[in-house]
Amino acid sequence: MFRASDYSNLLRQLEQFFTDSANQKPIAKRLEPEILREQLSLDLPTEGKPVEQLQTDIANYLTYAVKTAHPQYFNQLWGGFSSPCFMGDILTSATNTSMYTYEVAPVATLIEKTLIAKMGKLVGFSEPEGQFTTGGSNGNFMAMAIARHRAIPTLKQEGMVNSPKLIAFVSADAHYSFAKAAHLLGLGANQLWKVPVDEQGRMVVAELEKQIAQAYAQGAKPFFVAGTAGTTVQGAYDPFAEIATVAQREGLWFHVDGAWGASVLLSPTHRYLMQGVEQADSVVWDAHKMMGMTLMCSVLLLKHRGMMLSAFSADGTDYLFHAGEEEPIDLGLSSIHCGRRVDAVKLWLTWKQLGDHGWETLIDQYFTLAAQAEAIINAHESLAMVNPRQSLNLCFQYIPRNSQQDPNTLTLKIRQVLWEEGVAMVNYAQLDNRVVFRLVICNNQTSQSDIKEFFESLVAIGQRLEQEIG
Amino acid sequence: MFRASDYSNLLRQLEQFFTDSANQKPIAKRLEPEILREQLSLDLPTEGKPVEQLQTDIANYLTYAVKTAHPQYFNQLWGGFSSPCFMGDILTSATNTSMYTYEVAPVATLIEKTLIAKMGKLVGFSEPEGQFTTGGSNGNFMAMAIARHRAIPTLKQEGMVNSPKLIAFVSADAHYSFAKAAHLLGLGANQLWKVPVDEQGRMVVAELEKQIAQAYAQGAKPFFVAGTAGTTVQGAYDPFAEIATVAQREGLWFHVDGAWGASVLLSPTHRYLMQGVEQADSVVWDAHKMMGMTLMCSVLLLKHRGMMLSAFSADGTDYLFHAGEEEPIDLGLSSIHCGRRVDAVKLWLTWKQLGDHGWETLIDQYFTLAAQAEAIINAHESLAMVNPRQSLNLCFQYIPRNSQQDPNTLTLKIRQVLWEEGVAMVNYAQLDNRVVFRLVICNNQTSQSDIKEFFESLVAIGQRLEQEIG
Repeated sequence: MFRASDYSNLLRQLEQFFTDSANQKPIAKRLEPEILREQLSLDLPTEGKPVEQLQTDIANYLTYAVKTAHPQYFNQLWGGFSSPCFMGDILTSATNTSMYTYEVAPVATLIEKTLIAKMGKLVGFSEPEGQFTTGGSNGNFMAMAIARHRAIPTLKQEGMVNSPKLIAFVSADAHYSFAKAAHLLGLGANQLWKVPVDEQGRMVVAELEKQIAQAYAQGAKPFFVAGTAGTTVQGAYDPFAEIATVAQREGLWFHVDGAWGASVLLSPTHRYLMQGVEQADSVVWDAHKMMGMTLMCSVLLLKHRGMMLSAFSADGTDYLFHAGEEEPIDLGLSSIHCGRRVDAVKLWLTWKQLGDHGWETLIDQYFTLAAQAEAIINAHESLAMVNPRQSLNLCFQYIPRNSQQDPNTLTLKIRQVLWEEGVAMVNYAQLDNRVVFRLVICNNQTSQSDIKEFFESLVAIGQRLEQEIG
Repeated sequence: MFRASDYSNLLRQLEQFFTDSANQKPIAKRLEPEILREQLSLDLPTEGKPVEQLQTDIANYLTYAVKTAHPQYFNQLWGGFSSPCFMGDILTSATNTSMYTYEVAPVATLIEKTLIAKMGKLVGFSEPEGQFTTGGSNGNFMAMAIARHRAIPTLKQEGMVNSPKLIAFVSADAHYSFAKAAHLLGLGANQLWKVPVDEQGRMVVAELEKQIAQAYAQGAKPFFVAGTAGTTVQGAYDPFAEIATVAQREGLWFHVDGAWGASVLLSPTHRYLMQGVEQADSVVWDAHKMMGMTLMCSVLLLKHRGMMLSAFSADGTDYLFHAGEEEPIDLGLSSIHCGRRVDAVKLWLTWKQLGDHGWETLIDQYFTLAAQAEAIINAHESLAMVNPRQSLNLCFQYIPRNSQQDPNTLTLKIRQVLWEEGVAMVNYAQLDNRVVFRLVICNNQTSQSDIKEFFESLVAIGQRLEQEIG
């Protein structure tokens, strides 16, 4: 049934894949879907074949997979590779179970609770509660659902039809998952009010206060405000302490979306960015971003015990959950999921290996690389930061010498060439009507020399394109 | 960075774990949480340690993990082990990416679309659309959200406060995720109306019609009805063709929850159970149940193209999604998730290995084992089926010779001893005020002799307990 030797070919194939990544072999072979489809043998056959023959399919997969552990992979808010994490993932798959009951997942349940306690304490919650979720969007959704339940507990059974109009507040730069949550929860996306931000993308709390007053004036009921720890584009941290003061005064649930940025809590040097987070009612924190876990590895942390169970319990679950305690051990009872993958074990093994100090080193190293990148940009005549760096995001443009040429078009084009030539993957975004590179530092395979090389490649392509355009 | 040799110890540990499973070593070492916690070194240290030293932590994990691939594991609607699936999981972890864009997941996106097309065609949809979800509950939730969007498209922006009262219908034996969905979506759990079932747990469609009329009479708006393919306890299949007729007449969205039971579509012999499913608007199908994939591997299939995008699109996603086509290749645009794990590759590899015929053989074999189990129960004087078997669930009781003894207590006690002694794990449920064993057949490691052995153990324990009680 399970022979270790059955997997040696696969591991050798992976070793080659990672060696190619490390040796700066093309980061990706970019093909349009129609062309790629022809290169692959995707079809699902009527007759099967011996498992050994899957090697070709695996090889095909690896040939066209994006090398997300390539040192020049900066495309998303995640990347890199961690060996203990990979071991944890293998262990999880092999011992296949579901997070819903202690009965079938005894060790994983205790591990998940251990991590929730540890991460909750790092936030500053004295009696943290929480769960691993299926991602940051899922965590933000759950937080808003719990807040709604606290605001109007009868709504769980009776629905929103006769409820007051509930208003949720986020900054204009908050993640789109809040709009989806407001829609899904039946508030309607229009009831997600977006508070203006300053130039660096931080919520202007005076504007929040105005909007709250406006909502009351309209007869609506404000119930929820979310600050962001590390916005998607600029990496901004909202002023949590100020938001907390307003939230407490107005009786709003205060949530912090730290999907991207909460990991700075691991660094005594940089955790000041999170000041005031301990006053939040809930926090989302993705360990698959700065902490380098494989997707998914995301937690929702809550300050108040019992809120999840109260919000998410349902009738008709007794076929699955047999324990009847007051604070039940089964995580599934307070979940919106039924079956759920074990995402905690890989983080637990990695934490064992790194220790708190290892995490600190990792986060501090990212900030060092980000500072290095910022210095390169500031020193180079063809590069310009759009706003000063706040954390690990660098938003910058390529500035052509000829002022007749459009930096937006050029920035976009350079990004495309970097990718098509397999040199580097970096994303772009719109910022104040400008197209900007959004360089994010969260790949543990990236060194100082890689950062240097990245900008050299980028500038070289920029100069080439400038000449081509003429 | 990645050396195949780094994982040889782990694979050897896993080999031992699976060898123990196959050799019928205890299926689990059942300990109370407080005791188990003492056996484990759960703490997350300040200082780390070399990755080689994780072996002890891994060994601890394996010692107390439940052997879900043990041939006597019948506890949940999943179990067993598949080598190509495990390879797919390893491949997924190593090439770590997210299902949201074609840019970072080109091959996985095409693979997911291939599987959606294949599984949609098996349902009988001519132009299927869909996505992998994070589980059956998530899929049921999404289906209800899409149905709500179709019923009242303005609700997405405006919310439910001024909407008519929306009513969703499921059978009394449907999964609890529908109640959670009704709550979360803002309908309120009370607006999930439960249609009575017949003795075998199938929806009585005449009762559905009555309830729809009643809803209209109350000024409410029926919008959604779900049939179940394989109910959780009895494995019942609702009469889909009849429900479809009512749904079409009344303009309701017709969803089928086939999380457990849709896999019978893979068997020409048993797919008759799904008759009428092709008339559904959406179907949930978990491949981590009968198809033996590791958790999670669940799909939501839709008959109508464009519905997901229309229901789930949001503003503010342009930092991530750069393609602007009419039918965009990026799956994340029509998702309620942002990052999402690649769950399709393991299923694709397994399908390549098994082929359609391999799946057919697997499903048919489960039905053969279930028929064998039913025959054993019916032939044994101490065992009694509560209702005739409909698919792969067997609900039965242990009947004591002394009619003074309570079959409910005895059934529960036998279940507990089987588990505590590490012999077998089988779940129980309440059915018509009786406590019943719920034996489910979906473990590819289970053979005919294992089934025989299971009942021998069960009866032996029953007889022992009868004597002890006296």
